[in-house]
Amino acid sequence: MSHAPASAPAPLSALLEAALYCPDLDAAEAFYGGVLGLTRLTRAGDRHVFYRVGGAVLLIFNPAETAKPPSPGALPVPPHGARGPGHLCFAASDAGITLWRQRLEEAGHPIEADFRWPNGARSLYFRDPAGNSIEIAEPRLWFAAGEDG
Amino acid sequence: MSHAPASAPAPLSALLEAALYCPDLDAAEAFYGGVLGLTRLTRAGDRHVFYRVGGAVLLIFNPAETAKPPSPGALPVPPHGARGPGHLCFAASDAGITLWRQRLEEAGHPIEADFRWPNGARSLYFRDPAGNSIEIAEPRLWFAAGEDG
Repeated sequence: MSHAPASAPAPLSALLEAALYCPDLDAAEAFYGGVLGLTRLTRAGDRHVFYRVGGAVLLIFNPAETAKPPSPGALPVPPHGARGPGHLCFAASDAGITLWRQRLEEAGHPIEADFRWPNGARSLYFRDPAGNSIEIAEPRLWFAAGEDG
Repeated sequence: MSHAPASAPAPLSALLEAALYCPDLDAAEAFYGGVLGLTRLTRAGDRHVFYRVGGAVLLIFNPAETAKPPSPGALPVPPHGARGPGHLCFAASDAGITLWRQRLEEAGHPIEADFRWPNGARSLYFRDPAGNSIEIAEPRLWFAAGEDG
């Protein structure tokens, strides 16, 4: 028997968008579209470029543009815009991480770290063109097998 | 017939972690754990608090701590730490967004925007305690029905 009110919302169970900030969107495209091979959803001038990552969207924003309040008559999208290195992590298998490390090295892209956590999960770290710390890690870092759905 | 080399990695098809920065982790816990009801995975002192969101993890970091290089002998986790308002978006249905709006209003939490995009998808916006722009939106903002898996 539940004591939650009938109007209680269902738990938030999925991320739809994650954001990073890169002042140079052309450099961001060369990296996220070129080196990482993500599928671009849209680019809006010097404001943003968005990529699909499975059922979610990676938003790359130029903070100089997104910090501006919406124009009169435009949709009231709240301004935002962080500065300094952020963080994002993609999921991949151990074998996949090995292949991504090879891909990055072939592209001349520096690897910053590649290690296993105490529970055995592997994490590979590198920087995007804005200095954000990008990671590719095994889901078992957080979730037992079969539990990450 | 594929021309990709045999060693090409599989496409990056899932976000494992998204990060936001909140200098006050107790305020972050009251909001993300209390108001939004997310399940906490771990808290490490004044450095971070992590929450499960489906098959992904929302990382809330205190940038003053994560900007420090790893201690000697510690795992070589690269430093990072952004300042200023970031952005994150959770997925929910239109009816779910209505219930989340009620929950936020009942908690006395201001709503910053609530509108529909040109394709009809609804987005609700509010701020976390650090000023990050948090959104709850319908997946059809980005994906056709049945395509968001």
